[in-house]
Amino acid sequence: MPELRKDYVLDNFVIIATERAKRPDQFKEKQASKEEDVVKCYFCPGNEHLTPPEIGRIINGKGGWQIRYFPNKFPAVANTGKAHITTDNSFFTYSDAYGYHEVIVETPDHDKELADLSCSHITQLLKVYSDRITNLSKDPSIRYVSVFKNSGEAAGTSIVHTHSQVIANNLIPKVILDKESASAYGCPYCKILEIESTSHRQCYSNPTMTAFTPYASRFPFEIWIMPKRHVISLHDFTEQEFIDCADLFRQALRKLKTLNAAYNLVLHYGIRDMHLHFMIMPRLTKWAGFELATGTIINAMPPEKAAEFYRH
Amino acid sequence: MPELRKDYVLDNFVIIATERAKRPDQFKEKQASKEEDVVKCYFCPGNEHLTPPEIGRIINGKGGWQIRYFPNKFPAVANTGKAHITTDNSFFTYSDAYGYHEVIVETPDHDKELADLSCSHITQLLKVYSDRITNLSKDPSIRYVSVFKNSGEAAGTSIVHTHSQVIANNLIPKVILDKESASAYGCPYCKILEIESTSHRQCYSNPTMTAFTPYASRFPFEIWIMPKRHVISLHDFTEQEFIDCADLFRQALRKLKTLNAAYNLVLHYGIRDMHLHFMIMPRLTKWAGFELATGTIINAMPPEKAAEFYRH
Repeated sequence: MPELRKDYVLDNFVIIATERAKRPDQFKEKQASKEEDVVKCYFCPGNEHLTPPEIGRIINGKGGWQIRYFPNKFPAVANTGKAHITTDNSFFTYSDAYGYHEVIVETPDHDKELADLSCSHITQLLKVYSDRITNLSKDPSIRYVSVFKNSGEAAGTSIVHTHSQVIANNLIPKVILDKESASAYGCPYCKILEIESTSHRQCYSNPTMTAFTPYASRFPFEIWIMPKRHVISLHDFTEQEFIDCADLFRQALRKLKTLNAAYNLVLHYGIRDMHLHFMIMPRLTKWAGFELATGTIINAMPPEKAAEFYRH
Repeated sequence: MPELRKDYVLDNFVIIATERAKRPDQFKEKQASKEEDVVKCYFCPGNEHLTPPEIGRIINGKGGWQIRYFPNKFPAVANTGKAHITTDNSFFTYSDAYGYHEVIVETPDHDKELADLSCSHITQLLKVYSDRITNLSKDPSIRYVSVFKNSGEAAGTSIVHTHSQVIANNLIPKVILDKESASAYGCPYCKILEIESTSHRQCYSNPTMTAFTPYASRFPFEIWIMPKRHVISLHDFTEQEFIDCADLFRQALRKLKTLNAAYNLVLHYGIRDMHLHFMIMPRLTKWAGFELATGTIINAMPPEKAAEFYRH
């Protein structure tokens, strides 16, 4: 049973993922390789029986699937055990790492990346994100549903066939609580949109969405995509917002692809008032000792220059 | 001039390191290679003229140097400009990234790692750490001095000849403020020592120091080294504490070397009451989308098993 543990002192949580535990000598991870994996890719059409039982699929016009989702075979969390986080012991704070861990295969095509998909295809994917959050939130022990994507070796991918992941668990991330607190008396993100939509960090815009490189970017070429309207959750997106969001995803990722950059994509949605936003974090550099010691991140790519790159 | 910027909302700071800025196409970093670099290693004896002017050295018995330190040629901070962080603008919070960035070459021997050095040699290195913190703290604009080491490609090393780094700057890291807050009414670290010295996370111990794998380890094989006495800063170490600390460093790093693990080493010392501790963070896995989205770290190596590894 995986375990959720809090640091002795800090509000830092870890999941000790016993299901994924290895012997010390197994800790050197194998490099993901597109060539090697194509023979028996678990995510390719024809190998559906190799994945855990399917939760759902979006079908294409030809009777096959376009998007397919199922439980992760090596989950970091488990929907058994005690979801309640202890508060009785002042020293050790823990619970079972309760939750659900799912995989969303974004396309049957082994050789495509998310950036290569059509706008309508990405729109479908965003709707699947929304659907999974809504459905997993129905379990009263689930406090937050994280939707994310790891693209490329440096971003932590272990399977190269393009996919997203969902981890729903029994903890509201501290970063979300902090962003909610900051949103309690007026939305800072609405103000950010107002300022950045005319700043030199502005990248792309369409009727309902904006993309810009954030003022204090922690990653070279970090870019945020945000609805112009004060929307808390994907569930509240209009059809046009889904389409426009997919459009900016596509523009940003296609540009990023020219750098051959690994990246992580994450969604922060609100639980009360927070204005949702997607963050794309390219992994072109490594956090080293200074970053780990202080939390202050050294970034050698000014977001103003990164925005120029995206615009041109 | 590098710039220190705060996130719009969160207490996250970044240093936009303009001195290190590159063109977009230069962002793919070259792999550090021991073989390639040996011909013209800037840190090797004979090449002292290739580094910025030396700040100090520890000499060996044969007239040469054993440890040598000087300003980083590509500093992330600069000791010019305005160190004061703005508070007048509620939206953008920034200053010049004021400070000092230094390199400490740990040995003249290009082929040795920190783990290969003698206990007395490592003792000297710890004293250099102490000396740099004391000296750099004399500048009234310096709020904290971070001492750290990046060992191996995955830990962010760009030069392989074993070295440590020091960044003194105009910001007390939030993690230090949080640990100080937790230490205001009694020291949690004294209690941690009491509990972990008899727990199954205990690794090594000698008269004045203890090493253990922390309860909520964020890295596989993470290990902390801590004085048994409630010491705030290295400056207050006794001779025996320096020697005993070096002894546990050596034991931990020699064991870690059997995994061929890249690692970061960092020091957290107190500014008021916090009990100092070193943290060694092996970089055998990557933080991916879930970690970046939530701050919750998935660790597949239970610290209890990691402690077994260190002990045997």
